[in-house]
Amino acid sequence: MTTGTTTTTTTGASTAPGSASAPASTDSPIGGRRHLLSIADLGAEGIEEVMKLTDSFVEVSSRAIPKVPALRGKTVVSLFFEESTRTRLSFETAARRLSADVMTFSSSSSSIKKGESLRDTVQTIEAMGIDAVIVRHAGSGVPWQVSRWVHGPSVINAGDGWHEHPTQALLDCYTIRQQLRARGIQSAPALDGLRIAIVGDVRHSRVARSGVLAFAALGAHITLVAPPTLLPASLVGWPVEVSHDLESVLPKLDVVYLLRLQQERMIEALLPSLREYTATYGLTRQRAGLLPEGALIMHPGPVNRGVEIAAEVADLPSSVITNQVANGVAVRMAVLYRLLGSGVELAVA
Amino acid sequence: MTTGTTTTTTTGASTAPGSASAPASTDSPIGGRRHLLSIADLGAEGIEEVMKLTDSFVEVSSRAIPKVPALRGKTVVSLFFEESTRTRLSFETAARRLSADVMTFSSSSSSIKKGESLRDTVQTIEAMGIDAVIVRHAGSGVPWQVSRWVHGPSVINAGDGWHEHPTQALLDCYTIRQQLRARGIQSAPALDGLRIAIVGDVRHSRVARSGVLAFAALGAHITLVAPPTLLPASLVGWPVEVSHDLESVLPKLDVVYLLRLQQERMIEALLPSLREYTATYGLTRQRAGLLPEGALIMHPGPVNRGVEIAAEVADLPSSVITNQVANGVAVRMAVLYRLLGSGVELAVA
Amino acid sequence: MTTGTTTTTTTGASTAPGSASAPASTDSPIGGRRHLLSIADLGAEGIEEVMKLTDSFVEVSSRAIPKVPALRGKTVVSLFFEESTRTRLSFETAARRLSADVMTFSSSSSSIKKGESLRDTVQTIEAMGIDAVIVRHAGSGVPWQVSRWVHGPSVINAGDGWHEHPTQALLDCYTIRQQLRARGIQSAPALDGLRIAIVGDVRHSRVARSGVLAFAALGAHITLVAPPTLLPASLVGWPVEVSHDLESVLPKLDVVYLLRLQQERMIEALLPSLREYTATYGLTRQRAGLLPEGALIMHPGPVNRGVEIAAEVADLPSSVITNQVANGVAVRMAVLYRLLGSGVELAVA
Repeated sequence: MTTGTTTTTTTGASTAPGSASAPASTDSPIGGRRHLLSIADLGAEGIEEVMKLTDSFVEVSSRAIPKVPALRGKTVVSLFFEESTRTRLSFETAARRLSADVMTFSSSSSSIKKGESLRDTVQTIEAMGIDAVIVRHAGSGVPWQVSRWVHGPSVINAGDGWHEHPTQALLDCYTIRQQLRARGIQSAPALDGLRIAIVGDVRHSRVARSGVLAFAALGAHITLVAPPTLLPASLVGWPVEVSHDLESVLPKLDVVYLLRLQQERMIEALLPSLREYTATYGLTRQRAGLLPEGALIMHPGPVNRGVEIAAEVADLPSSVITNQVANGVAVRMAVLYRLLGSGVELAVA
Repeated sequence: MTTGTTTTTTTGASTAPGSASAPASTDSPIGGRRHLLSIADLGAEGIEEVMKLTDSFVEVSSRAIPKVPALRGKTVVSLFFEESTRTRLSFETAARRLSADVMTFSSSSSSIKKGESLRDTVQTIEAMGIDAVIVRHAGSGVPWQVSRWVHGPSVINAGDGWHEHPTQALLDCYTIRQQLRARGIQSAPALDGLRIAIVGDVRHSRVARSGVLAFAALGAHITLVAPPTLLPASLVGWPVEVSHDLESVLPKLDVVYLLRLQQERMIEALLPSLREYTATYGLTRQRAGLLPEGALIMHPGPVNRGVEIAAEVADLPSSVITNQVANGVAVRMAVLYRLLGSGVELAVA
Repeated sequence: MTTGTTTTTTTGASTAPGSASAPASTDSPIGGRRHLLSIADLGAEGIEEVMKLTDSFVEVSSRAIPKVPALRGKTVVSLFFEESTRTRLSFETAARRLSADVMTFSSSSSSIKKGESLRDTVQTIEAMGIDAVIVRHAGSGVPWQVSRWVHGPSVINAGDGWHEHPTQALLDCYTIRQQLRARGIQSAPALDGLRIAIVGDVRHSRVARSGVLAFAALGAHITLVAPPTLLPASLVGWPVEVSHDLESVLPKLDVVYLLRLQQERMIEALLPSLREYTATYGLTRQRAGLLPEGALIMHPGPVNRGVEIAAEVADLPSSVITNQVANGVAVRMAVLYRLLGSGVELAVA
């Protein structure tokens, strides 16, 4: 997980992925090795390393007893200030399959109410000898802030505001490579020359920001497809093309990646109506027919069936949404193992 | 856990136990073996099999270290959309004593809020390789719906609306047999010829529905004792007698089973007052004196002391309410082991 | 953990520590050995015994795999009716490092809502064969009430109203001894002759009540420093001196212990303003300079930086707030081991 250089330019615009209000974590003395805050910490080499390790954990997950003793005696805390069944369950399943102890704090159960500041909570966690903190927060940059307060624990960004969600990008990269290989379409390592479109609310999407960083680092060509109101204010520094015409983009793709549309966007008047959004940017059955054979349909979930994707399209064989979820556990095992593992063999637990 | 025939008729009336809005799970290709949705899935033979297995787990529970490695590496998720300290704690204790990993989702902590549908949550759980989902939901039939969405995990019904609560019925059968044997009253297997009265709000009770199915399958004679407003609209297909006179029923019983009275029934005007209910259907000290020697007093808990049962009666030696709770853990170990176990010996963990 | 005599008088005033509405737990047949409700249960000998055991668990905590099999197969439930990240996390980390299974019930998730009484919840926990219940509740005396309802499980008081918080006092005693030894100031066992000031809202503080009992039992001289509105109505029976002048007290201290100031005190008009409180009772940089060299600054957390203590003072080397948190886990391991342990060796898990 060396901090290689990435193929993206992460300077020049405040909305560029990997920047926002958070400083580059590669400035930290540990060179991004102890924490996973941004995809930019990893670079192409680091991503490749996680991919290889994930192969091992996909194998572990297929065992009758899918458990290894690698992190026995380690304690992992999930500190979720924004609830997410899917991401929390995935991280906690990963930690348990590595034999770590897991404790959960969600905003409703934490004593933040009682006036306990985030800083105090984090320092308490550090003082107790916790080994890793998995942080999700509505504020961009919070995981960086947490990483500056701790000296012992590893900090893993499980989603900060509209900023980054690095393990989602890692599981997306892994799923693309795994599925294209299974279809005989891609044999090279990395994602060299793959054409990927990210469709929908890019502006408010940490999934899109981390995805762009990771796909670009691995050599893919990225097109953002969205109405102007759902694109970032500035795209300076983003290694992407932009289109407002989904139908013209679809026939050239290896992967179409649909983003979740939050209902709030209607209230904020960024969109006239769900119906109109679906009419222009939804992946209907007919539009799915424009994709080349073997192209993948992806979505980070949870899916709004009938909005960004038709229900029947979500269930097509080319839709790998379920594989993304399944690979999420293995990718997070790889990340936790890489950050916390002490070299214990991956034997049967 | 073969799907034997039961002695009840579960067709003919929409309110008959085992039917409601849910299809018989014996229609599923796996013949009710992978899931536990209804007592009707088990039949007399299946219930007997769980009883025998429960004997082993009562023994395990009495050990200094009451833990076996049977489900090591298996992951069980409790998905409770209705909170219940007692049932959730019982299932989770059972799973941990079998060395399974346990994750908890209650409605307040799940991201159902965020617009994540039940279906998405369940598919996520399936994709992550979870082995069993324990579902409690206010909607009748929800566990059947969940079972149709999954291909891998076992689904266990921990209570669906007014419909069924099969593990409660199993622990009740086990407790009756265990306690009557201890009192030298019953030596036969099954509950052949035992006279059981179920008293109270049968209409809204999943405990009563599953109990009637199980007690009848094992050969007991069942009398429902309740005011007409708290009986189901139709009793066609129920293998029961009905009485409105508790005092005339009590002297002939082996078991009196009191149901919990929800305070909401007053608001709904199904009852004039708690005081009047207690005066007519409460098990007072005086009425408890009408029971034959050795007869058992049961209640699924939590008890409204002074309403359906007098506080002093709940504490009599003939009251086996605490035994029901204790046996609940062993019965749920038996169910989890039967559904998920891979034949690992029940050695010391 | 014998119930030795303490140097405090716990009779004579309803507000004396160790009394309040709760009966002395030494009245119970098990002589305070099975439960930890009050510091008064332990006495000097009992405290010393926990301190010695804590030394072992500090060593365990420093291991690469800080886990021992001592409580394998035991189940511990944390029953928190008042939320507290810090205390709950500390107890649960301690239990897991001893290899116990841990289940969490917070007031929001428990079915107390459903009309399930505290008594029913506790009896359910007992019937399930749970080994220990860690109780936090806003009502003084609740852990005593719980201890009278159970015959099997150990009850540990994790804070009851304004009354007691015994494990906090134990970790404070341990931290004082550990840190003064490290500074070469104290070599004797116990806290003989040490001068400790407890500053702030003593009236509403269970930390202060348990602290006074423990520090006095070990031979320390205690001064309470607070405005009259934040002192208990009566101090009859408290083995303490009282001062309203922090600056005159500081130069003579070995330990200054600051209490957390709840914002509610302003609303209740017990204090004119936060600013005025800080001006008179806050440990500012300047006041911290009045302490003798090597004196310790302590706080139970979470800290209101800038109110009871200046941010820069909380970060001085003489501030041992982080050590208190770290020792909290080891002390709670010692308490759980003492109450539940069956003599299993403290080998590697």
